[in-house]
Amino acid sequence: MAARLGDIVARLGGELHGDADLLVEQVAPLDSAGPAHISFLASPRYRGALSSSGAGVIIVPPADGEALTRAHIRTRNPYLYFARVAQMLNPEPATTGGVDAGASVHPSAALEPTAHVAVGAVIGAGAVVGAGARIGAGSVVGEGARIGAFSRLHPRVVIYPHCVVGERCILHSGAVIGADGFGFARESDGSWVKIPQIGRVLIGNDVEIGANTTVDRGALGDTVIGDGVKLDNLIQIAHNVRIGDHTAMAACSGVAGSAVIGRRCMIGGSANIMGHIDIADDVVVSAVSFATRSIRAKGVYTGSVPSMEHREWTRNFSRLRQLDAMAERIRALEQQLATMQGNKDN
Amino acid sequence: MAARLGDIVARLGGELHGDADLLVEQVAPLDSAGPAHISFLASPRYRGALSSSGAGVIIVPPADGEALTRAHIRTRNPYLYFARVAQMLNPEPATTGGVDAGASVHPSAALEPTAHVAVGAVIGAGAVVGAGARIGAGSVVGEGARIGAFSRLHPRVVIYPHCVVGERCILHSGAVIGADGFGFARESDGSWVKIPQIGRVLIGNDVEIGANTTVDRGALGDTVIGDGVKLDNLIQIAHNVRIGDHTAMAACSGVAGSAVIGRRCMIGGSANIMGHIDIADDVVVSAVSFATRSIRAKGVYTGSVPSMEHREWTRNFSRLRQLDAMAERIRALEQQLATMQGNKDN
Amino acid sequence: MAARLGDIVARLGGELHGDADLLVEQVAPLDSAGPAHISFLASPRYRGALSSSGAGVIIVPPADGEALTRAHIRTRNPYLYFARVAQMLNPEPATTGGVDAGASVHPSAALEPTAHVAVGAVIGAGAVVGAGARIGAGSVVGEGARIGAFSRLHPRVVIYPHCVVGERCILHSGAVIGADGFGFARESDGSWVKIPQIGRVLIGNDVEIGANTTVDRGALGDTVIGDGVKLDNLIQIAHNVRIGDHTAMAACSGVAGSAVIGRRCMIGGSANIMGHIDIADDVVVSAVSFATRSIRAKGVYTGSVPSMEHREWTRNFSRLRQLDAMAERIRALEQQLATMQGNKDN
Repeated sequence: MAARLGDIVARLGGELHGDADLLVEQVAPLDSAGPAHISFLASPRYRGALSSSGAGVIIVPPADGEALTRAHIRTRNPYLYFARVAQMLNPEPATTGGVDAGASVHPSAALEPTAHVAVGAVIGAGAVVGAGARIGAGSVVGEGARIGAFSRLHPRVVIYPHCVVGERCILHSGAVIGADGFGFARESDGSWVKIPQIGRVLIGNDVEIGANTTVDRGALGDTVIGDGVKLDNLIQIAHNVRIGDHTAMAACSGVAGSAVIGRRCMIGGSANIMGHIDIADDVVVSAVSFATRSIRAKGVYTGSVPSMEHREWTRNFSRLRQLDAMAERIRALEQQLATMQGNKDN
Repeated sequence: MAARLGDIVARLGGELHGDADLLVEQVAPLDSAGPAHISFLASPRYRGALSSSGAGVIIVPPADGEALTRAHIRTRNPYLYFARVAQMLNPEPATTGGVDAGASVHPSAALEPTAHVAVGAVIGAGAVVGAGARIGAGSVVGEGARIGAFSRLHPRVVIYPHCVVGERCILHSGAVIGADGFGFARESDGSWVKIPQIGRVLIGNDVEIGANTTVDRGALGDTVIGDGVKLDNLIQIAHNVRIGDHTAMAACSGVAGSAVIGRRCMIGGSANIMGHIDIADDVVVSAVSFATRSIRAKGVYTGSVPSMEHREWTRNFSRLRQLDAMAERIRALEQQLATMQGNKDN
Repeated sequence: MAARLGDIVARLGGELHGDADLLVEQVAPLDSAGPAHISFLASPRYRGALSSSGAGVIIVPPADGEALTRAHIRTRNPYLYFARVAQMLNPEPATTGGVDAGASVHPSAALEPTAHVAVGAVIGAGAVVGAGARIGAGSVVGEGARIGAFSRLHPRVVIYPHCVVGERCILHSGAVIGADGFGFARESDGSWVKIPQIGRVLIGNDVEIGANTTVDRGALGDTVIGDGVKLDNLIQIAHNVRIGDHTAMAACSGVAGSAVIGRRCMIGGSANIMGHIDIADDVVVSAVSFATRSIRAKGVYTGSVPSMEHREWTRNFSRLRQLDAMAERIRALEQQLATMQGNKDN
């Protein structure tokens, strides 16, 4: 669908410089955009591409707009503006409510008439599916689970019994919400006795959960995912974890049991959070880093090891086992030197 | 369901101090338990919560019971006792055998009459499903595969052809058992020739496998998961791996091809085990650690890097590439000093 | 199925020493092979097992054949030869085309008559499925997606709308192709605005993708997986990544957004590739290593930390935070010593 620049600015704000009747059809990056595209300048690094871009219109910070003679929209946060334009030009397809042939809905489930249940999906006893919600092909909504209004389960999502998904959430294929947490007591012979996991998963509103991500149900209490949380693919959230509103976690990261993560945190890809620790609001844990202790103050925390040429790695990393000995040798040298210095001074 | 304290102790042992006719309905942690709850003291750390807890009865070590005037059960391992009480109060719902409408069972498959196959599940040719087993919605049991008695596949589990699952196992949603191992020979031009993976996966009894965990079939021989093994979510077990009885692995860990892990090991979250190595019985590999060589003796093995403030990390980790040079400089200093010392002594 | 040695050599080359009429039925490793098995010597390490092996015939390098009196095939790359023999002895079962009862194919989808769609699979509007392709039970091929000739989707694979899979590909259960990339702009209050992911995933020919692996669709452009690429299980490929032909990645590895990986690379298990970097052709990134910067030259790159006894780790790794201080102390010692040396020399 196309939009008039005038209508875009009327809806999203910003300062239009150019023809309000110009139509744009799609978003595109500066280097491949054509006259029907709207593009954006997200970083001064790409300033060089401004003049050569074929884009019909470009979203820029006010300062960058001053030198421009071509059509552009000035706004303080071009990337955010671009996100909104992209949503405007790519609306979700309208959904017709109803249950497809080949879906299975338990008679005791409560479906709003505008909800859609696709072929092969299964809605369990007593489950509730809100207005405009979409349950994708082959997804399973367990007994007593609740899916909020306008939430979307892509194909093959599983919601275990009694878990709760808020409104306007997006769950991608393969996500598993509410499997048993990993809780066992140990017999004296080393074998394990399963501890029934009787808590739930509670997911807030406007949450997105990536493909094949797993969020375990609580052991006794609940696992809680706050409003606006964004989880990428292949993430593990263990039982009783609590994640604060608007925290975002990149792919392959993992949070061990009972950890509490604050609001607006950013957890990098393949990062790990130890169990039973607290992470303050607005903390960034870098990619491939391991937060082993509670973090009390906002800031960036890192612990990864960058790769290097294998030969260089072999030479240096064999020393890791000698670090303590090296420190001792430095101390011994300092003492010897101090003694010599003392002798000489006397 | 509720249970009389007298009946609990008659079944599970321990020493009851209090009213045998008291009913408890559910387990709960000390801090949120009410009069119908049974709680437990797992660690001396929580002793302070004993007196203020609203729990109807508390499971405690004998020594902690002596000072208590409230109802309690004394036992040497309160956490294990708690696990058993929790199982008693939260029995698995009874299952009715049969094949749901919308399931697909090959005529040559052998299903015990007490087994249940849920809607959308698929049972392949010649597959065998034991007594009381439950095959969840949308699960696929491949040709010739076997599921032991009372095992449970949650929705959307896949068992590839000819794999074997023992008795009383629990497989969570998204688990994939028996996909091809990653085996290829290389052409001189760098392209890959697939090696057919003709082994199976053999899973023992009382095994639990977490959501979206993958266990690959063997290349020539089989991949073997011992009795009582517990695998958390998003774990990768490569072809020809053997895992000994009662070993537990936390989420996101991975075991490369042909590694052999002993009995009663504990592998931490996001830990990795190199291929073709042996891990002895009773070994603990810490979370986010990488076992690169065979481990011959029981004990705890660790190799993770704790995260720190980003600035501190930048300052220190830039030195990792200089470790070898630093060691050389220390040696040079020691030699110089020894020379000076020698000169002075002469 | 059995094969005559003469027929094997006629088809695959190599130099047969022994009876051309001998039949072999299956491949097997040296130590467990019997007279109906064909085995191979892949490494000089196993030479000792040559004489004691019960294999009917053994594939060996020419030099190793000279001392052998038993039946053998001489070839320069026994492992590659073995892969081809294994394929010959384990052909894919013939498939009958057609749509199983209980599958759901949109009337506007285009299926070649020789394609097979298994029970519970869903083919969306306008999707195209090529000749001889096999869509496994419960798999979902989204609207407008294309599956090339002779490609195989194992049960429960999801292909999101408009993604393209080439010919002769193998996708294992739980793989999710084309879920939304992780793209959000941030509001000033810390909440996130989703950026519609309007690109696709384009997968070349002869690609294999492991169980529960996820490949995200592009944000604006496409995510591209080259011909002959092999991805193991539980791998994450983020939006706009490009992977060159014949690159192989082991399980649990991850590639962040917009990274470009060259041809014939090998990425080890649990390795991570940072976003927006370039990896040259023929690069090896070792297991559990983190490539944080572009790699311009072929070679092996490593950054993992091997685990050690916990006590040793504690002692040495506490020094990581002191590395910078240690380097400073070494420099101070060197200066002091130089000063003393200078004083003495004067």
